[in-house]
Amino acid sequence: MAHVLGQNQYGKAENRIVRVRRDSTRHEIKDLNVSVSLQGEFEDVHLTGSNANCLPTDTTKNTVYAFAKKYGIESAEAFGILLARHFVDDTERGVVHSARIRIEEYAWERIRTPDSSARFIGSEEVGHSFVRSGQEVRTTEIVYDGERVQVISGLKDLVVLNSTNSEFWGYIKDRYTTLKEAYDRILATQVTARWKYGYSGREDEAQPNWDRSYTQVRRHLLEAFAETYSYSLQQTLYAMGTRVLNNRPEVDEVRLELPNKHHFLVDLEPFGLENDNEVYYAADRMYGLIEGTVHREGVTPVIPVV
Amino acid sequence: MAHVLGQNQYGKAENRIVRVRRDSTRHEIKDLNVSVSLQGEFEDVHLTGSNANCLPTDTTKNTVYAFAKKYGIESAEAFGILLARHFVDDTERGVVHSARIRIEEYAWERIRTPDSSARFIGSEEVGHSFVRSGQEVRTTEIVYDGERVQVISGLKDLVVLNSTNSEFWGYIKDRYTTLKEAYDRILATQVTARWKYGYSGREDEAQPNWDRSYTQVRRHLLEAFAETYSYSLQQTLYAMGTRVLNNRPEVDEVRLELPNKHHFLVDLEPFGLENDNEVYYAADRMYGLIEGTVHREGVTPVIPVV
Amino acid sequence: MAHVLGQNQYGKAENRIVRVRRDSTRHEIKDLNVSVSLQGEFEDVHLTGSNANCLPTDTTKNTVYAFAKKYGIESAEAFGILLARHFVDDTERGVVHSARIRIEEYAWERIRTPDSSARFIGSEEVGHSFVRSGQEVRTTEIVYDGERVQVISGLKDLVVLNSTNSEFWGYIKDRYTTLKEAYDRILATQVTARWKYGYSGREDEAQPNWDRSYTQVRRHLLEAFAETYSYSLQQTLYAMGTRVLNNRPEVDEVRLELPNKHHFLVDLEPFGLENDNEVYYAADRMYGLIEGTVHREGVTPVIPVV
Amino acid sequence: MAHVLGQNQYGKAENRIVRVRRDSTRHEIKDLNVSVSLQGEFEDVHLTGSNANCLPTDTTKNTVYAFAKKYGIESAEAFGILLARHFVDDTERGVVHSARIRIEEYAWERIRTPDSSARFIGSEEVGHSFVRSGQEVRTTEIVYDGERVQVISGLKDLVVLNSTNSEFWGYIKDRYTTLKEAYDRILATQVTARWKYGYSGREDEAQPNWDRSYTQVRRHLLEAFAETYSYSLQQTLYAMGTRVLNNRPEVDEVRLELPNKHHFLVDLEPFGLENDNEVYYAADRMYGLIEGTVHREGVTPVIPVV
Repeated sequence: MAHVLGQNQYGKAENRIVRVRRDSTRHEIKDLNVSVSLQGEFEDVHLTGSNANCLPTDTTKNTVYAFAKKYGIESAEAFGILLARHFVDDTERGVVHSARIRIEEYAWERIRTPDSSARFIGSEEVGHSFVRSGQEVRTTEIVYDGERVQVISGLKDLVVLNSTNSEFWGYIKDRYTTLKEAYDRILATQVTARWKYGYSGREDEAQPNWDRSYTQVRRHLLEAFAETYSYSLQQTLYAMGTRVLNNRPEVDEVRLELPNKHHFLVDLEPFGLENDNEVYYAADRMYGLIEGTVHREGVTPVIPVV
Repeated sequence: MAHVLGQNQYGKAENRIVRVRRDSTRHEIKDLNVSVSLQGEFEDVHLTGSNANCLPTDTTKNTVYAFAKKYGIESAEAFGILLARHFVDDTERGVVHSARIRIEEYAWERIRTPDSSARFIGSEEVGHSFVRSGQEVRTTEIVYDGERVQVISGLKDLVVLNSTNSEFWGYIKDRYTTLKEAYDRILATQVTARWKYGYSGREDEAQPNWDRSYTQVRRHLLEAFAETYSYSLQQTLYAMGTRVLNNRPEVDEVRLELPNKHHFLVDLEPFGLENDNEVYYAADRMYGLIEGTVHREGVTPVIPVV
Repeated sequence: MAHVLGQNQYGKAENRIVRVRRDSTRHEIKDLNVSVSLQGEFEDVHLTGSNANCLPTDTTKNTVYAFAKKYGIESAEAFGILLARHFVDDTERGVVHSARIRIEEYAWERIRTPDSSARFIGSEEVGHSFVRSGQEVRTTEIVYDGERVQVISGLKDLVVLNSTNSEFWGYIKDRYTTLKEAYDRILATQVTARWKYGYSGREDEAQPNWDRSYTQVRRHLLEAFAETYSYSLQQTLYAMGTRVLNNRPEVDEVRLELPNKHHFLVDLEPFGLENDNEVYYAADRMYGLIEGTVHREGVTPVIPVV
Repeated sequence: MAHVLGQNQYGKAENRIVRVRRDSTRHEIKDLNVSVSLQGEFEDVHLTGSNANCLPTDTTKNTVYAFAKKYGIESAEAFGILLARHFVDDTERGVVHSARIRIEEYAWERIRTPDSSARFIGSEEVGHSFVRSGQEVRTTEIVYDGERVQVISGLKDLVVLNSTNSEFWGYIKDRYTTLKEAYDRILATQVTARWKYGYSGREDEAQPNWDRSYTQVRRHLLEAFAETYSYSLQQTLYAMGTRVLNNRPEVDEVRLELPNKHHFLVDLEPFGLENDNEVYYAADRMYGLIEGTVHREGVTPVIPVV
C-alpha cells in the first residue's frame, strides 16, 4: 500500500531577538521570541533529497533579524504580519503557500531612580535601564496564506487568585465521589488566553492598535476574574470570555485554558487549631483543567483546541 | 451581539499513579501520568452556575485510581480505553458525550545485582528494585465518543544523533541567505512522534498488543534515523514515517516533530587548529523545526498539528 | 578502614503554604515555599535503623502549617525564626542541635477594578483578588543553633538590562583570545543576591523591619545597576554590593551571582544593513558567570559560595 | 565604615561541547557541559574598572573548545584537570590563583540495527548513530590551586524505587505528629551523589581510570539501594555511602542528597476496594530531603553542603 506525505511545515523556531530603539537619551526595547513555520511545495525535499524548493531555516532566521532593523518592531503583531507576507509573497517561484509566525513577547519596565540623568525632583526613570516585569508572557500567532491574514493573540502564565467569593456544590454524585461541597474556597488559576481578531489583512483595512488592544484585553480578563462570584471555574471562564467580547469589538473569539490550581485547606484539628479558611496547601498536581471558547454569534471559531 | 459558548472540555489533569503488581517476590510497576478531559452538556455549568451536570474533576481523579485497582493496568492504551468508555457510558443522564484520556508513561528497568535474594550464579534482577531508564516518555491519547475509539500513541524526548552521513545543499538562495552548504554535518534531533492506530473499538475487534507495538515502532524510528543517508531532516522524517508504516500494519498515520538540534562546527583556525568535523558547539536555540505527517493512501489523517 | 558518618541533615522540603488574613472585606495573602532541615543526634538513624531520635519530616511539615495558623506570618524571616527556634528548643531530649529554614516568597499584587465592591470613584483594589507580580522570588535562610540566629535573605530571578553605558576592553590577550573590545554594549543579568543581617537573635535585640529592608535592598540593587557606567560586570557587581552596605546598616555582607546574559549584535552587513547597536540576538548559553561578596570591614563573611 | 571585596570568581559557564572521534567507520562521541570559574588578583576589575588582569570569559570558552581538539577528551575528569592547570599555570603574570572546572556529561549509546553497513548476522551497532540514554547526568568538579588538584565526581537525577522492603516506625511523637507508622512502603528517591577522589595531582601520581570508577560507583550505589532492607532513608543513605567506600579505594568521601519522593497509598475504601499496597499517588512536593556524608576515618571531608 502506498504512503502519502500529508501536512508538513518547517522553519526556524525560537529566534530570540532584542530590538533597541535609541532616541537620544531614552531607549525603547522589544524582547521577542519569534518562530517561523512555512507550508508549500516541499514534497521533493521529503521524497527525493532535492532541496531546490527549500528556503533554509537559517534564512528564515536571518530574515527575522534583518526585518527588525529595516522595519523596526512596532508591535509583535505588526512585525509578524510583515514576516508572514514576505515569506509567502517574496519566496521564489511561489513555493511557500502559507506562513505562520508565532511570537512570545517579554515585558520590561523602566527602572526608576532618584539619581537619573534627568535629575528631576522625585524619582525618575533611567532612559536605558530596564527590569523584567510581570509573570505573564504575551503571545501572538499570524497566519498568512497569500490572501488573508489571521491574527490570534494571547497571553500565558498570568496567575490569579481569589481568596473568597468562590463556591462549588450541587454537582453529580456517583460511586467515585468523595469531594465535599465547598461554600467558601480559594479559586486560583494560571490563565492561558488566546483571542482572534476580526482583522483579515484586506488592503483597505486598518490594523487595530495591537498594543492597546492587548493591554485592554488583559485588563478585562483580570477584572472579570476579580468581580465574578464563582460557582465553578467554568462559570468564571465564561464570564472572562464574554467580558472581553463585550468590551473589545476588534475581538471575535476568546479561548481560555484555566488550570484549577488547587489550594487545599490544611486539617489543623489534630493540633487543636481551627482553620477558618486561613491556612492552605498549594498543590502542584493533579489540577483541574477547564478549557472553553466564547465567540460572537455567527463567527466560526478557529482557535485550535490543544 | 450575542455570545456563544463554543467548544469546551474539562477534567483532572496529571494524575500521577504508580501501580504495583506484587507476584510473590517479583513485582511489576506501571508509572503513569493520566489526564482526563470530558465534553458534553455543560452549558449550564458555564452560564448559570448550576453544577447539576458537572461530574467533578475530583471524581474523575478518584475513578482513575479506583480503576487501576479494579482492572489493573495492562497497558496505558488499554487502561485509557477503559476510562474513556466509563466516563461516556456510565455518567448519569448521558451528559458526557466524549472523553479524552491522555497518558504519559515513564519507563523503569530492574536493578541487577550479584547479591539478590534469588542468589543465582551471575548477576540477577532484584524483584522489587527499579531504576528509571531512557530519556523518552511514552504517550497515548484515547478519544471515545460513544461509538468509536481512537488511539493515538507516541513518544517524546527521544534524542538521537548521527555524527556523519548528513548533507545539506542545493537550497534556495535569496538576499537573506548566508548559510554555507554542508557536505558532512552532525544531524541531531529530539523526536516527538505520534501514530494513529487503525483500531476503532468495534465489539468484535481485538486490541493490538500495545506494548509490543510501541517497542517496535520505537525500534523502526531509531533504525530509519540511523540508516538514512540524509540530505535534509525532512528527508529523514519521511524515511522514519514510511519505515513505521511499512512494518506496522496496525498503524495508519505517523506524525513527527523533529527539532533540528544544531551542532555548529567551532572555528579553531584562530588558534592554529584544524577542525575536521571533530569539535562542535551544541546550541539550545534557535533550532530548525521540521514537522510532517506520513499516512497510508486512502486514510484521512486525524493527528492534530500543534 | 573504618567509615564515619559526617555532616548530615534532613527535613521536609518545599512545603507550599498560602496564608490568608481575612480582615473584614480586605484580605492579605502570604505565599511561601518553606524547607526545613535539622542537624543533631541522628547517628543511630543512619547506622542501626532505630528511629528513636528521628522527628519525622512529616511532623516538620505539620509544624509549619500549625505555626502559620498559631502565629500568623508577619514576614518570611520572622516566621522562619519561630520555626527554627521551635525545632531546636522544643524537640524532646534536645536531639536537634541546629535547624535551618529556607523560604521562598512569591509576590502578589491586588487586582484593581473600576467596579469593586467599595465602588469608590476611580479604579479600586478588589479586597480578595490578586495577580502574581514580578519575576523575582524573595528568599531567606534562617539558621539557629540553640544560641544564635543567623538570617541571610535575598532574591533571585531579578532580570535587568542596560541598553547602553557598558564597555569592555583592556583585558588580557592570549593565544585563545578572539573577542573584540566593546565600547557600547548591552549589559543584562539575572540577579541572585543574598545578604546577611547583623541581627543575631539576642533576647534584647529588636528584629529589623524585614519587609521594608527587603524592599529597600531590592531598590538599591536596581538603582546601582541602572546608574553605574560599567567597564565590566564585576565593576557593576561591586557597585551594587557597596550601594546596599552604604544604605542599609542592618546588612553586613552581600553576595551576588550575576550571569552575563549575552546579547550579541547581529551581523546585518550581508543584507546591506548597518546594525547601529539596534538588533541583538539574546543567547541562552554559554554565559559569563560573575560572583562576588562585598562585606563590611571587620565582618567575617559567612554566605556560602555555591 | 569601609567595605571589602571578599571571595569572588568568574568564568564562562555552560559551554556545551560535542567532541567526535572519527576512527574509520566507527565514531565515538563525548557530550559535555563545561563551566569555568577563576579566582585570583581581580580586585582592580571590581574596584577601578581596569580589566588589565581580566582574562575574558570569552577566552575561557575558546580555550575549552581548542583543548577539546588539541588533547581530545579522554574523560571529563582528565579534560577538566588539563583545563584547570592551564588557567592557573599559563595565564600571564600568574593572576589566576585557582581554577574550578565543573562538567556535566550526558550519556549516549549506539543505535543497533539489523541493516547496518557491516551487515553481520544479528543486530549490529551503527558506527555513527547514537541515542541519549539513561536519566542520570554524570558530573565532575576539578579544583586546582597551583599545587594540588582536587576531584569531586558525581551523578544526579538517578531515580530509583523499591516497591517493598522499606519500613518507617518508632520515631519521636510530639503534638504535631499525625504520620502513621509504616511496615511496608514504597521507597523512591532521585539520587544526587558526589564523591571525592584521593588523587591530588602529584607529579608521580597516576590518575585513576575515571570512566571505570564512575561506572563502578554508580553500580554500587544501585546495588546498595536495592539490597538494603530499609528502616529509614537515612539508613539507606549510609548503606549506599559505605558500599562505595568499601569497594572503591580511590574514593575517600561520599556525599548523598536523597529527596524522599513520596508515594502515598490511595484510600480506596470509599469505593469498596482494598488497596493492598498496589495503587499509589506519586507526589511532587513536599518531599523529605535526606542529606549526609560518609567518609573514611582520618579524612577531613571537603564536599560542600548546599
